[in-house]
Amino acid sequence: MREVFQQELAEVQDRLVEISRLVAISINKATQAFNESDVSLAEEAISEDEKIDELTIELDELAITILARQQPVARDLRIVVSALRISASLERMGDLSTHIAQLARYRFPDKVVPKSLRGTFAEMGSLVTAIANMLTELLTNEDMALAETIRNEDDKVDALHLSVFDAVLGETWKGEAADTVDATLASRYHERFADHAVSIAKKVQYLGTGAWQQNTGAPHTSA
Amino acid sequence: MREVFQQELAEVQDRLVEISRLVAISINKATQAFNESDVSLAEEAISEDEKIDELTIELDELAITILARQQPVARDLRIVVSALRISASLERMGDLSTHIAQLARYRFPDKVVPKSLRGTFAEMGSLVTAIANMLTELLTNEDMALAETIRNEDDKVDALHLSVFDAVLGETWKGEAADTVDATLASRYHERFADHAVSIAKKVQYLGTGAWQQNTGAPHTSA
Repeated sequence: MREVFQQELAEVQDRLVEISRLVAISINKATQAFNESDVSLAEEAISEDEKIDELTIELDELAITILARQQPVARDLRIVVSALRISASLERMGDLSTHIAQLARYRFPDKVVPKSLRGTFAEMGSLVTAIANMLTELLTNEDMALAETIRNEDDKVDALHLSVFDAVLGETWKGEAADTVDATLASRYHERFADHAVSIAKKVQYLGTGAWQQNTGAPHTSA
Repeated sequence: MREVFQQELAEVQDRLVEISRLVAISINKATQAFNESDVSLAEEAISEDEKIDELTIELDELAITILARQQPVARDLRIVVSALRISASLERMGDLSTHIAQLARYRFPDKVVPKSLRGTFAEMGSLVTAIANMLTELLTNEDMALAETIRNEDDKVDALHLSVFDAVLGETWKGEAADTVDATLASRYHERFADHAVSIAKKVQYLGTGAWQQNTGAPHTSA
């Protein structure tokens, strides 16, 4: 029974990694689409999200089945409950990525990002993509240093988010209302995306190094 | 054991109702604060959120304890997992209420809502407050007609949300960038608040009439 449980937990972890990888692909495409007004890339980002939604529903069903069949307690139980929460955050990250892609699609063929903010959004796009990739890595290897890095990178996203408001509310802002709306929403979506990554990183940290491996009996987690 | 489980489920339901009630109080204060530039009401809405956060953490711990001790399966298991998800949505609704209140606080003593949108935001505020109150009622009595009503009221919020964009992007819009930012964010917060309510209503519907009562042995749930 214990061995089956260990296999099932490993399966849960594999699926979280797979979903996180799709989220990283989606946000990479969405932010590029947004920054370069590339509507076909926007479509691709949006279609990744459908897959993400399907996979999170399947993962949730698997987690509930594990709860029912294995009846885990203590730390094992917390791992499965955390998986459900991580899944919910990943699903939401996929939605936010879609929202960013949709902004590119709505305004096409016009550019979404006004010239004065292009550098800021390019940086934000790189940061959230890097964060999504680090998250995949964190879920794969549970390298706790990555959890810290994600939190630090999120601080940078927050600073850029504030700088967008400063720009839009500043005296030199020349954007029309449509630019103001787009910049406000896009910045908010990037910020929320990074927040969810931090929330997942905290859950992985809370479970502690080796939470999954401990249960899959990998030799390097005996420490 | 079964009787203990039934008591614990009733406790979970009571706590969800309590949190939902606080969310309703918070959004009522936040939307009033926003519409009337009332900074002390904004503070009150924000302080409700601290209580909401505490209570959701406590509820989550209770749900995990129930999973560990009672090891529910089938429908019972789904009820406890749903409670965790409903709790997460309520917590997020409290956050969104806080965001609306903060907009009022940031701009004080200036009015947040530009004149041309005051009617729209007054209506949105009434709708989300009514939705929060219906949600409390739904969690209390599981009157499934309310779940449908919440979905219909959410459609109205969505329509108003779109009308805010139409106004802001229209040719007659005279607002400054700050007005555009505030209207965009506030409208988005109202819309997301209502979305979470719908998400909770769907979970209650999915569990079916009498999901909690069935387990607490109330006589009217034998149907």
